Amino acid sequence: MIKLLIHGGAGAIRRENHSEEEMDEYKKALSLSLEQGFRTLSEGRSAEEAVVEAVKVLEDCPLFNSGKGSVLCSDGRVQMDASIMCGQNSDCGAVTLVEQIKNPILMARYVMRHTPHRILGSKDADALARELGFEMESQDYFVTEKSKFHLIEAKKKGLIQLDHDEGDSSQTVGAVALDQNGNLAAATSTGGLTNKFPGRVSDSSIPGAGTFANNKTLAFSATGTGDIFIQNMSGFDAHSQMLYGKASLSEACQSVLEKVKSKGGRGGVLGLTSSGQSFMGFNSLGMFRGMKGSDGSFQIEVF
Amino acid sequence: MIKLLIHGGAGAIRRENHSEEEMDEYKKALSLSLEQGFRTLSEGRSAEEAVVEAVKVLEDCPLFNSGKGSVLCSDGRVQMDASIMCGQNSDCGAVTLVEQIKNPILMARYVMRHTPHRILGSKDADALARELGFEMESQDYFVTEKSKFHLIEAKKKGLIQLDHDEGDSSQTVGAVALDQNGNLAAATSTGGLTNKFPGRVSDSSIPGAGTFANNKTLAFSATGTGDIFIQNMSGFDAHSQMLYGKASLSEACQSVLEKVKSKGGRGGVLGLTSSGQSFMGFNSLGMFRGMKGSDGSFQIEVF
Repeated sequence: MIKLLIHGGAGAIRRENHSEEEMDEYKKALSLSLEQGFRTLSEGRSAEEAVVEAVKVLEDCPLFNSGKGSVLCSDGRVQMDASIMCGQNSDCGAVTLVEQIKNPILMARYVMRHTPHRILGSKDADALARELGFEMESQDYFVTEKSKFHLIEAKKKGLIQLDHDEGDSSQTVGAVALDQNGNLAAATSTGGLTNKFPGRVSDSSIPGAGTFANNKTLAFSATGTGDIFIQNMSGFDAHSQMLYGKASLSEACQSVLEKVKSKGGRGGVLGLTSSGQSFMGFNSLGMFRGMKGSDGSFQIEVF
Repeated sequence: MIKLLIHGGAGAIRRENHSEEEMDEYKKALSLSLEQGFRTLSEGRSAEEAVVEAVKVLEDCPLFNSGKGSVLCSDGRVQMDASIMCGQNSDCGAVTLVEQIKNPILMARYVMRHTPHRILGSKDADALARELGFEMESQDYFVTEKSKFHLIEAKKKGLIQLDHDEGDSSQTVGAVALDQNGNLAAATSTGGLTNKFPGRVSDSSIPGAGTFANNKTLAFSATGTGDIFIQNMSGFDAHSQMLYGKASLSEACQSVLEKVKSKGGRGGVLGLTSSGQSFMGFNSLGMFRGMKGSDGSFQIEVF
C-alpha cells in the first residue's frame, strides 16, 4: 500500500470570496502536488522523497503561503520555515527564519541528512544554503501583490492573521506519505502569519509541533494557529496518545485539534499510519487538501 | 511544600581536570543561584519567578554556558537560546539565536507574557529587546578566554562539542521549581555547543524539548546533546509517559535519558512534580546540580 496526503492550509475560507476560476487554480495546484508526490511513491521511491516532491510543488506555487507567495512579517519581509521527519528512525531536519532559499524544504532535508544539527535558522542558514549551491532568490521573488495587500489589511485591523482568514488565499503547506516499504514521512513549509513579529519561529519548523513521523504511530502535518501547536507540541502529542494511550489515529488527531481549539486556536491536521489509515481534519471553515492511495482513494477538497 | 532544582550542565567532567579552587567556584555559583531562587519561593512568589531568578544568576556567571560565558559557534560568535514554561496553563516563551541580550531568559519570559508568539529568534529578537529597553551587551561581554580556547581545541579535533567535554567547564543551565500554590515552572538557557554551525537552534529554545512544565505531570529542564533532545522531544515525552502511560517521574526521566543514549547522545535532566517528588539524573560523567526544598532536602553536587 502506498498513500499520500497533502494540505495547502486551513482557515476562514469562504466560498463567496473566491471565484470558480480561483478555486479551480487551487485545485489544479493541489492536483499537481498530489500527482508529483504519488508518482514518486509509484516509482518505488521513499516516503521522504515523496513528501519533499509534493511540498516543493506547493512552495513554487504563489497561491500558497510557503516559498513563493509566503505572507509578510509586520516589517514587510518574508521569513520562511520548513521541516521534514522520517518515521523509520525519527530523523528530522528543519530551517527557520530563512529569507532567500527558493525551496526551504530542500534545505530542511539537507539539515537532516548532512548536518549534526536538527534546526538551522536565520541569515546563517541562508548563507550556508548559498555556499552549498542551493537555488537562492531575492525577497522580490517571494513577495506577491496579494501578500502585500493582506499585510495592509491586517495592519488596518491590528491583527496577526491566520493564512486563510478574511478570504486570504495564501496557506501553509504540508504532506504525509507511506511508501512501499511501510515507511512514513511528513513535511511542512510556511511563510507563517500575516503581520507576525519579525523573528517569529513557527510550528512548521519544529519536528514534534507542526511536523512529526514515527512508523509505530503516525506521520503528521499541521496548519493553523502555529503558536498554539508549539505550546501543545501537537504532533508529538498525537504520537504519544497513540503510543502510550493506545488511542486510534482519529482519536489522537481529533484530540489534538480540540486542544488547539480550547486554547483559542484553529487549524487542520493530516495523519497517516503505516497500515494506510488516514485522517484529514480541521476546525476552521475549510482546508485545502488532497489524498491519493493505491487502495483507490482519491480526493481533492476545500470545504 | 516549595522546592527548587537547578543544573549547570552535564558532560565529561573529570576530577583531574579541575582544581579544588575551580570546583569551589562552581559550587559557590550554584549555591548563589539556588539561594536566590529559593528565597523567591520562600517569599511566596511564583515558580515562574523562581526559575527566572535562578537561571539569571547562572547566565551572569562566566563559568557556565549561558549569557556571559556562552560557548562559540564555528565562526567565533556567541548565539544564545533560552526558554521558560509554566505548569498551570502551559504558557511558554523562548528566544533563539540572540547575540546581544544580556539575559536571554528575561526576553523568553517577555515573549511568553507579552507577545502572541512562542519563540522569537535571530537579530530580530535582539532588535525587539533593544527597543523594549532590555539590557544589551556587545559580543565582547559574552565571549571569554576559556570559550575561545575551547573553540580552538574543538576545531583542531574537528569536533562539535558538548559543553563539558574534555574538561570544558562551560555548561547549559536550567531550573525547575514548585511554589506554595502547587504550580510548577521550568527554565533553560544556553550558548549551545562549541564549534556548532552558526544558526543552529538548540533544544533549550524549544518548549517540549529541553524545557517543559505541566502541573499534572512534571517540570523538566535538560542539558546535553541537544539535537537528540529535539529529535526525541524529550520534555514532552516525559510528560506523555506520565500522563498517558502512567509512568512515575523517575521511570519517565530515566526512559528519556536512555532514549537519548540509544541515539548516541548524552546529558542530564531535572524533573519535579507538583507533590514535590524530584529527579536529577545524567548519563555523562557528571552534572553540576543543586536542590533545595522546604522538606529539608539540600544538595549541591557534581559527580
